Amino acid sequence: MATVYVAGVGMTKFGRSPQTLTELCCEAVSRALSDSAIQEIEALYLGVMNPEEFTGDSNIASRIAEALGLTGLPALRIETASSAGAAAFHAAFQAVASGSYRHVLVLGGEKMTHLSTSATTRILAEVIDRQERQCGATMPALAAMITERYRKRYRLSPARLERLLCRVAMKNHLNGSRNPYAQFQQAITEQTYFSSKFVSTPLRLYDCSPITDGAAAAILTSEKTDVAVSGVGQGTGPVSLRERDSFTSFRATQIAAARAYRMAGISPREIDFAEVHDAFTSFEIISTEDLGFFPAGRGGDAVEEGKTALDGPLPVNPSGGLKSRGHPVGASGVAQLVEVVRGLRGSAGAKLKREAKRALAQSTGGLGTNNFVTIVERTDSPLMKNLPLPPAPPPGRKRPAIKRTQPPALSEEGRIETFTVLYVTPDGFLPPLALALIRDRQGSLFMAQGEDVSHLKIGREVYLRQVGGRNVFTVKSHLMKVREALKKLLSRVPPLPAQRRRPGKKETP
Amino acid sequence: MATVYVAGVGMTKFGRSPQTLTELCCEAVSRALSDSAIQEIEALYLGVMNPEEFTGDSNIASRIAEALGLTGLPALRIETASSAGAAAFHAAFQAVASGSYRHVLVLGGEKMTHLSTSATTRILAEVIDRQERQCGATMPALAAMITERYRKRYRLSPARLERLLCRVAMKNHLNGSRNPYAQFQQAITEQTYFSSKFVSTPLRLYDCSPITDGAAAAILTSEKTDVAVSGVGQGTGPVSLRERDSFTSFRATQIAAARAYRMAGISPREIDFAEVHDAFTSFEIISTEDLGFFPAGRGGDAVEEGKTALDGPLPVNPSGGLKSRGHPVGASGVAQLVEVVRGLRGSAGAKLKREAKRALAQSTGGLGTNNFVTIVERTDSPLMKNLPLPPAPPPGRKRPAIKRTQPPALSEEGRIETFTVLYVTPDGFLPPLALALIRDRQGSLFMAQGEDVSHLKIGREVYLRQVGGRNVFTVKSHLMKVREALKKLLSRVPPLPAQRRRPGKKETP
Repeated sequence: MATVYVAGVGMTKFGRSPQTLTELCCEAVSRALSDSAIQEIEALYLGVMNPEEFTGDSNIASRIAEALGLTGLPALRIETASSAGAAAFHAAFQAVASGSYRHVLVLGGEKMTHLSTSATTRILAEVIDRQERQCGATMPALAAMITERYRKRYRLSPARLERLLCRVAMKNHLNGSRNPYAQFQQAITEQTYFSSKFVSTPLRLYDCSPITDGAAAAILTSEKTDVAVSGVGQGTGPVSLRERDSFTSFRATQIAAARAYRMAGISPREIDFAEVHDAFTSFEIISTEDLGFFPAGRGGDAVEEGKTALDGPLPVNPSGGLKSRGHPVGASGVAQLVEVVRGLRGSAGAKLKREAKRALAQSTGGLGTNNFVTIVERTDSPLMKNLPLPPAPPPGRKRPAIKRTQPPALSEEGRIETFTVLYVTPDGFLPPLALALIRDRQGSLFMAQGEDVSHLKIGREVYLRQVGGRNVFTVKSHLMKVREALKKLLSRVPPLPAQRRRPGKKETP
Repeated sequence: MATVYVAGVGMTKFGRSPQTLTELCCEAVSRALSDSAIQEIEALYLGVMNPEEFTGDSNIASRIAEALGLTGLPALRIETASSAGAAAFHAAFQAVASGSYRHVLVLGGEKMTHLSTSATTRILAEVIDRQERQCGATMPALAAMITERYRKRYRLSPARLERLLCRVAMKNHLNGSRNPYAQFQQAITEQTYFSSKFVSTPLRLYDCSPITDGAAAAILTSEKTDVAVSGVGQGTGPVSLRERDSFTSFRATQIAAARAYRMAGISPREIDFAEVHDAFTSFEIISTEDLGFFPAGRGGDAVEEGKTALDGPLPVNPSGGLKSRGHPVGASGVAQLVEVVRGLRGSAGAKLKREAKRALAQSTGGLGTNNFVTIVERTDSPLMKNLPLPPAPPPGRKRPAIKRTQPPALSEEGRIETFTVLYVTPDGFLPPLALALIRDRQGSLFMAQGEDVSHLKIGREVYLRQVGGRNVFTVKSHLMKVREALKKLLSRVPPLPAQRRRPGKKETP
């Protein structure tokens, strides 16, 4: 396995752009080329999440190859939802590591801002489970439900959770204010954060990454440069919330991280800074735990204590992250690597306090369903003295076990596992929309929409029923519970004896 | 580079199916597993062209991995338009060849028949150039224009072209009638062919592959089996017709074939049979030329002479091809390899006359824009005695040259380079719709729609103008030409002297 180096990186400014997807991609490549000693490439690996629906064009790999004057060369589009850019980077890494190619171009891009927020939300929601979508769930809604569950599990008060999320948003906006490529280059105050509206409780507008246009590119090579890729890992997780055994961590990130660390021969402690997929502020906290930077449930404290700040011991998202740099979905995975390489070279907008030798990028596809971890090092770092790198550790292995089971029938009762109130609803749903994940007595999980938004609390008992194909829940009120208890009690009372008739009296007809 | 073997293959019956995409994929994998000694895999490579628009679900790699019980393992979706299945196969090949994985699952699938033909045509047309689409061009329309140009270039009479295309359709339907997995398992007569309606002149319904549901799977491994992959190649070509220097061959196939032959260390003569991407009958003829089986312009003769028949010296599409087996776009590239492996093992539905040692599969993405060639051999074939295979030949290399030029302004006049009359028009266009590729005096090409469908002929002079953003052409009639000549003549006649006034006469007011 050949060692894979980064020859050059480049990206467009992220934000609302008048350029087409193709133009954005060309600009990113042109910048990567002017950063690179390697000028000729052998293949194109393109990460775009959904050009079909965002732009109305498919066959995107050939299209972009043509615009780049690369027609003739192999061009592949790789897609794993919002981690498509990272997926393209990993596929390109494998191609160079295998010796199939010596120099390849990795490109990630997405054009989103020309559509309405409602259209964009609908397209982004296609990554989630169909049944959950039918209840009105969107990406922010499911992220909010994960956040609420996290709060409950780690016994944070609502006020404390808000404070922690606010700190993530403030840190990333402050970092972004120093990044000329970021969509938002303004620090925000606590007041700005707290005056922003709820998208889906407990997540506010400032907890969610924006809708963005942009592209990012990197040239990978087997010829030695100043930066090398020392570890890569990918993991997948269940698409639906219903199928998960944990709502407060992403197994896919843990798998990807374990593999990347093993390949690089390091532990999380040896990472100098990281770009983490903060599509939602709470996801940054969870991901820093999944990456092993902090113990489970302590990621929030770390932010509060300034550990992940630019001048902290482990800066997280020095670029501003998805939150402030923006999130053109297919581009983000490559943009993280652009920022990581710049950070290692000391050429990033936001300067790290200490010189960094080794950095990590973590990208999340969908609701944590297809995640990537990449470790990049300066070739003058201690580990990199022993090039070429040792062979990659053996991967995991599984026997396909095709699930033929029908989803369980809807129970009549259950308890709220987690919930949210969605204020930015998809078309066809009126805000505010209560959504909850309900666990029935058999342990099955159901996504359902609430009859109203009151009395929501994790652990509350609910009634479940189907209305027009959608699961609907009603929180049991005290009155309902009293009535239920009475009913049960009455069922134990022996039936009254049949009414005695007065002898001699005729029956009325 | 490790040698890559095929451990098992499987596919669903192709056709109109009540199953979902996920169910189709699971069935194909389950069949591949029961054909394979390898039961545990390390990664999933999934080729699907457009699940976003065909099924309304994105994040398809995680989704299918979950249905297969493979959650946790790396899962990538690879897409190159209608060759997505072949692209996934190639990416999986590279992953095993590089030693990244030992056993991987390749899966191709598409669900299409639940949509209207008009919706499917629109989705499929998104692979072609936007400006060409705006004129009303569809995949069959552009294929028809290529076919018409081929006819002209090789001086075939319209009747002879029809006869050749009919022979391809008859051969593939006859082969398909022996394939239990084929969508159409009935041979067709000349009469059936000639009584079928024109989709886009000169292509009839029986020249076009159908709309199909289906999935196909293969398990690749580095452990020796009876069949090995000895050569792979990929090439890209321009998306638009306007940018091509040849309309009668696909450069992308030629590049892919050259690389695959070089890797396998063989010449086209050493192929025993081939599965070729016959999305249109004429494409089978062109592709057999691009693959070097027959000289340019002689692919049709070869069909007529029975050279590509099941009992001929080089059977082409013994499975029935896309034409008769059906064309679930993302699945076709993998299905070809399923058929090729079965053909080598002698377990295919249609039996070859002679035992085959080495076979080739060729897959086309879009209008010949992203093409793949794969060579598969029995491990007891002469070349395969010397395993492992030698390293792959060095790939091509290019310097990105970003095209900043605006498309040329529409000229006022030009000549018809090729044309078609489209009878199955996209929404918003009334049939019959004349479409032509026009070359102006500067050599620029323009796609345009005709004012009417008469007087169409390659080489005819036309006027060009823009109507509502669309290019429209009018064939110059004899009368127009006479008028034009007169105008030119008149412009040379000196202007008449100013009218002399009679002296003494007053001017009328």
